[in-house]
Order: sequence, then C-alpha cells, then structure tokens
Amino acid sequence: MKTCTYNPKEFGAASCEERILEKVARAAKGKRAPGLRLGIGDDAALLRQRPGYEAILTCDWFLEGMHFLRGKHPADAVGWKCLARAVSDVVAMGGDAKCFLLGLALPSPLAGGWLDEFLGGLRRAAHRFRCPLAGGDTTRQERVRIHVTVVGEIRAGRARLRTGARPGNVVFVSGRLGEAEAGLRLLRRGRGQADAKDPRLQKHLYPEPRLALGRWLAEKRLATAMMDLSDGLSTDLARLCAASGVGARIEAGRIPAVRVPERIDPRGTGALLLALHGGDDYELLFTVPRSRAGRVPKAFHGVLLSAIGEITSARRVLLIEENGQACRLEPGGWDAFAAGRR
Amino acid sequence: MKTCTYNPKEFGAASCEERILEKVARAAKGKRAPGLRLGIGDDAALLRQRPGYEAILTCDWFLEGMHFLRGKHPADAVGWKCLARAVSDVVAMGGDAKCFLLGLALPSPLAGGWLDEFLGGLRRAAHRFRCPLAGGDTTRQERVRIHVTVVGEIRAGRARLRTGARPGNVVFVSGRLGEAEAGLRLLRRGRGQADAKDPRLQKHLYPEPRLALGRWLAEKRLATAMMDLSDGLSTDLARLCAASGVGARIEAGRIPAVRVPERIDPRGTGALLLALHGGDDYELLFTVPRSRAGRVPKAFHGVLLSAIGEITSARRVLLIEENGQACRLEPGGWDAFAAGRR
Repeated sequence: MKTCTYNPKEFGAASCEERILEKVARAAKGKRAPGLRLGIGDDAALLRQRPGYEAILTCDWFLEGMHFLRGKHPADAVGWKCLARAVSDVVAMGGDAKCFLLGLALPSPLAGGWLDEFLGGLRRAAHRFRCPLAGGDTTRQERVRIHVTVVGEIRAGRARLRTGARPGNVVFVSGRLGEAEAGLRLLRRGRGQADAKDPRLQKHLYPEPRLALGRWLAEKRLATAMMDLSDGLSTDLARLCAASGVGARIEAGRIPAVRVPERIDPRGTGALLLALHGGDDYELLFTVPRSRAGRVPKAFHGVLLSAIGEITSARRVLLIEENGQACRLEPGGWDAFAAGRR
Repeated sequence: MKTCTYNPKEFGAASCEERILEKVARAAKGKRAPGLRLGIGDDAALLRQRPGYEAILTCDWFLEGMHFLRGKHPADAVGWKCLARAVSDVVAMGGDAKCFLLGLALPSPLAGGWLDEFLGGLRRAAHRFRCPLAGGDTTRQERVRIHVTVVGEIRAGRARLRTGARPGNVVFVSGRLGEAEAGLRLLRRGRGQADAKDPRLQKHLYPEPRLALGRWLAEKRLATAMMDLSDGLSTDLARLCAASGVGARIEAGRIPAVRVPERIDPRGTGALLLALHGGDDYELLFTVPRSRAGRVPKAFHGVLLSAIGEITSARRVLLIEENGQACRLEPGGWDAFAAGRR
C-alpha cells in the first residue's frame, strides 16, 4: 500500500504516552473497587454509589523538589506516599476510600525502572487502603509531578467536619507527633537514597492513614470535629478552631512527642517543637464532648490516643508550658509558599 | 502575654497559601451543585448522588510551557480551557458535569492579578458548564501547573464508551476539525499575548465542549461508541478502533476541515493535515449503526455533524484520498512525549 500523503511529518509520531499508559493500566489490574463499573482506558471512569451513601472528594499535589527529593526518596515510597496522603483526607472525614485518579507527569528517562518502582509502591498502597486506580492522565515534564484525586464514601450524614468543635470539648490526637519530621531530618542528613527499611524513616516514607480509627469515630459519632494532621499541629489546630469559630488550650506536657536523636536536633529545638510544627504525620486531630471523652480508649488498634487539651470560646490557641505559663501558639507548620524561607 | 518559647522559628510562618485558598474559595461562591453537600474548606467535599445514576470521574493536566504559554495565553483563557477540556471527557461519555476539584500550583508573584484573571475565566466556564468548584489543593511552583478533576453523572447504563464500535457503523464527527490548531499557529506567530477577541483564536482559547450533543446521543442511544477529539482525529480514531477491536475507512473529501490562511500554512501542508492531526478541537467522534444513521441531523444546535466514513473489521485506519486511492493513516496527533520533537 502506498505511503499516505497526509501521514504525520511535523506532527509528533509514535506514542511514548500510550506505552506509559499501558504500564499504568497493568499496575491497576486486580480486584476492582465495588461499584467501579469502568476503570482505565476510556474517556472517564464510571462509579456506582451505594444508596444512602455520600461521595467524598479530595485531591493532593505530590511534587518533586517540594514534597519529595528524587535523590533521597525511593520511587517505591513516592508511589506509596502520594496515595496515602490523599486517602488520609477521606479518613479525616470518617469515610472509606473507594478509588483514585492519578495525574502523573514525568521526564521520559524515568519511564523505565523508576516508573516500575513507583507503580509498585502505588499498587501496594492501593491494596492496603482498598483504593484501586480508576483512571488518570500522564504527560511529560522535566521533573516528576503527581496529583492524586481520591473518591471515598460515607453513610449520608455521618461525615465528621472541621466545623463541629464546641467550647468544653476535649482535644485528642492519635499517635506520636513529629515522627515524620524527625524522619525527614534523618533523611536529609543521610547520603544518597534513604534506606527504606530504617524504622526511624518509616513514618516519613510510608505514612499510615488511620483508616480504622477515623471510621470508628464517625460510626460512633464520638468526634464533634475531625481533621488529619498533614501540616503540623500548630497550623492544623488553628484551622480546625477557625472553621468551628472557637479557640483551644493545649498542654505541652500532654502532647505525645517523639524522641529526637541529638544528632538531628543540633539547635536543641527539641521534641516538642517537632510535635507542634512538624508536618506529614497523618495522625488524626479530633474533639469529643467532655461527657463522652471517657469512651475514647488509651489506644485504638495499637495506636496511642492522647487528650491534649480543650476547646475554648476565646478564638486563639494557647499552649500551657511545663512551668504552667500560658502563651499564644502561632501556626508554624508546613506552608508551601513559605517553604523557601525555611 | 509572654512570647511562646515554642513558636515557629526555623519553621515557615504566615500563610500565603491560606490567602490563595481564600481567593479560590471566594471564586467558588455562588450556586452550589445539586447534591453538593459540602464544598471548599474542609478536608474533602461531600457529594450526594441521585438514585439510578452513575458517577463519571476524569482528570486532566494543564501545564505552562506544554498546554499553554504564559506570554501568549491570557490568564482568563487558561482558566476557561483547563476546565473545558476535563468537562469534555464527561461529555464524551454522554454525561453531565456536576462539580470539579482544582489542583493549582503557581509562582508567588502570580497570586495577584494573574490569579484573579485566571479565576475569572474559570468561574465563567464553571457557570457555563454548570460545574462548580468543590475543592482543591494549592501549592507553590516556579511555573503554573494545573490539574483538574471533574465529577459528572449519567443515568446508569447510558454511558457511551469507546468499545462499542462495530463493522458497518457510520463514523461521525461534530464541528470543523483543525480549527484549534490553526488558532494555535496564529497565536504562535503573533507578538505578545493573544487578543482574546480574535474569532480565529476563539476555538483554541475558549473551546466549547459539546454538552447538548453528547447528552442527546447518549439519551437516544444513537451512538454505539463515542469519544472527544482532544489529540487529533488520526490519533483518537485509532484509539477508538483499538478499544473496539475494529478498524475504519474514512474519506478525505468528507472531513469537515477548517479553512487555513496561507500565512500560517507556509509549507502548504494544508487544511486536511490540520484536520487529521491537529489537537484541542474537543469535538465529538462517534459511531452510529447504518440503519439509524439517517436519524443524525446535518447540524445539532448549530453544530455541523458530518459522516466521514465507516467502521471496518480489518484492524487499521484507511484514508481514501480525493483521487480515490486508499492509504494507511498513522496516528499523528498530540503526544506529550513526542512534543519536544515537533
């Protein structure tokens, strides 16, 4: 057959994009989400919702140079974490993740081994969080840019919002705070790529959204307000208070801080500072009416739960230091636009 | 009150991100989507679905330097187009858009006038497509990166997929093809920012997804397969054929090409080449059983509808040139990974 006069010349030919899409689609194979009628491969995905449930929608950036460093973070951890942090937003409403969409932009040379490793971590996270890949969009960029959208669900009316905190409510957090920030500092000090097996780095590289806890607090309607700690307690508690039109008083001595090795804490800023302002913990921050606070156990499925203070009507966040003095706590957690000034 | 020992020092302070979020939230104000219980401001959005309907999920990148040029494209057009192209994927299933999530990364200096203008275009598009902003995530980057996720809906079982084309089906396209590519070439040749009022640039700057047509083809179950033309006919028709396990034979003389001014067509590649391989038209490509093809009008709500060929069982796309000779048409449309070679 003769050559077509109108075949592409100046237009781009042969599709690297199709090949990447095929890889992504292969990684998405496996158990399909209940209700997911159509996944990758068409213009869009189709999802059927259970009657009596609401959809939860959330999205998150994960960008090379800002949220991870290609020379330091294993591609496997990048795959895990980009999904974990978006799932954490669904958990913070008390819901279950159902499926996710992946926006992936990467340099062509990474379409081989890096992409395979990335998809490996992503796939394990999708399996762990029961949140399979339903679709996405890939393109080329000079650095890796990831944008994840998670669709979750919750029984109608059960979602825990940021707006429900009332004066007198007890403020709780899960886990130990500052752990991910401590891990990040270790990673920054290390040479080359992080050892993914180092337990001190685990929380930074492979965060575990508190799925069971979030679901339990919503099902039992124990939490009046809830959110996840992604940007640091001082910033996120201020956000919860602003959304609810209240303030809070928290006690330094009751904040479950992580132990910080001296070599990553040269300025002596200490564990409490990390716990107050360190980001990326993906623990839950929630408020419970005083009358029901006794129903919150000391630990839930092995995760520590700590009452750290109470909600007040005065619209400010106070920290009671160990010496009993009160001071006003300023938001000092993660802020992308201030990150360059750190 | 004394200064807090534990207030932020090395951590980032004051939040530019909060201020940008406030701007975005203000732009999202107005009529809320039916069923959208909770929009911007919490960890996630909440959407209630109508019984008997399915959710449609799709996402799209829109990146400075790849999908638009900051020096050429008005911020208003960037706002319009980033939503239009994602809505077009919902339209291509035959559904209605319901709401969208915005991932927005931008350099700090653009948080003023550029952001306002961008949000203006985005807001007009959201109003036009009845697809309000439901949530999102903003961050800082050295160039503008946008990722849009659209959630739509369609009556269960009515979605038109890429997989339904059968041999003998008639292949249709809406509108005139190559128009957006011609607009892009005019824009590239011009100096400075494009004149948004130039009608020859309209289709490139402010594409109009074919909402009414897509809905009608799905409601009447006329289309056996459907997709939108985002990457060019030669590429997208090949994708539709691959998904359906078929081929196609299209006639050069029946392709509704746009008229191309000579000054943007110096190599004489001509209108047909633009129509075959030019991207960004967001017209609909669909197939209809021969017995029902007579029910497709010549135009729908003022948009031309053209039968350009038929589906074949041989798995290849043939182009019948004006002289009657058949040749094999290679995909030559937009490919992000080949774009650098253009």
